[in-house]
Amino acid sequence: MEFSSKLLENAVSEMARLPGIGKRNALRLALHLLRQPTEQSQQLASSLLKMRENINFCANCHNISDTQLCEICANPRRDAQLVCVVEDIRDVMAIENTSQYRGQYHVLGGKISPMDGVAPGDLAIPSLVEKIKMGNIKELIFALSPTMEGDTTNFYIYKQVEPYNIAITTIARGIAVGDELEYADEVTLGRSILHRIPFESSLKSI
Amino acid sequence: MEFSSKLLENAVSEMARLPGIGKRNALRLALHLLRQPTEQSQQLASSLLKMRENINFCANCHNISDTQLCEICANPRRDAQLVCVVEDIRDVMAIENTSQYRGQYHVLGGKISPMDGVAPGDLAIPSLVEKIKMGNIKELIFALSPTMEGDTTNFYIYKQVEPYNIAITTIARGIAVGDELEYADEVTLGRSILHRIPFESSLKSI
Repeated sequence: MEFSSKLLENAVSEMARLPGIGKRNALRLALHLLRQPTEQSQQLASSLLKMRENINFCANCHNISDTQLCEICANPRRDAQLVCVVEDIRDVMAIENTSQYRGQYHVLGGKISPMDGVAPGDLAIPSLVEKIKMGNIKELIFALSPTMEGDTTNFYIYKQVEPYNIAITTIARGIAVGDELEYADEVTLGRSILHRIPFESSLKSI
Repeated sequence: MEFSSKLLENAVSEMARLPGIGKRNALRLALHLLRQPTEQSQQLASSLLKMRENINFCANCHNISDTQLCEICANPRRDAQLVCVVEDIRDVMAIENTSQYRGQYHVLGGKISPMDGVAPGDLAIPSLVEKIKMGNIKELIFALSPTMEGDTTNFYIYKQVEPYNIAITTIARGIAVGDELEYADEVTLGRSILHRIPFESSLKSI
């Protein structure tokens, strides 16, 4: 692509560095911004800068937060003895949306992945182990995605915290509510039979 | 979506104002920027600001340009008597890529569209008519997209410049090179038969 303006070219190539945005799409976005009032570009630029430069992470759970402790950790009505281990803030938002969870979180910031060069030391695992050593946690719930990296991370943490005698659980895998059995994959259906639950306890959910 | 950080929320909602970027996608982009060095966000923000605040348009053809005249209009080897009317800079880039055109452009900045509130006065039509009045143009080539808005704009300009006795042409519509006849739509195939050209002149193209 040959540009008639260096300013436009720079903006396009910076935007095209974002994942999932190609050069053509970036050009479309840049031309859109040029048609809008200057204020929109200023607000976009300043909100990105402010976010990147002033972002804070909760001292307890490592979730993104503007305060020392995030709202969830600061809430005295949340059970601090129950900790759900998740990958990033999107998982926290997804679980919060269900309104079914009253404990706290621990945001790892990723999964162990030798292929992508992510070692245990790059994640917030030591602070989790530290919290457990202090003896304030009764149950750890693993809620990482069920990939090889997720399973590896679960197992690594499990080995680290095994000696401290706390309950370690993982969220249930099974047929999604509303799904047809015939379209489910075998691994999921197999697990859902293996980990069947008493019918009565299925009645008290949502 | 409930955010644990106002800074993150602002950045996400500013990004989600861009066309084709939803809230979820904006959150993904924001989290990506947070994982990258601060410099990337700074470069992105400053390139957008610089582009929006310092952008210039060529005084002759209204194409985006960092100089008073764009490179094409400033090039003495381009034929200033031949002017191709296009909608925006992307069309200029597409035609320049073919290396088949040696004239100049006139960038309208849009198409007449009463539905979107775009009137002839919002486009760079008066300056085009002015150029033609001056008597320096021999041929005008319409290269707007063949939609109702494009046809309306063509016709509006045609009516304005008709009295000045210049050649007015439009780019050829027909079956794309490499396309099968059986998959072509009827309008395109119909037009390509109606506007057939001598076989000999098809030999001298690309």
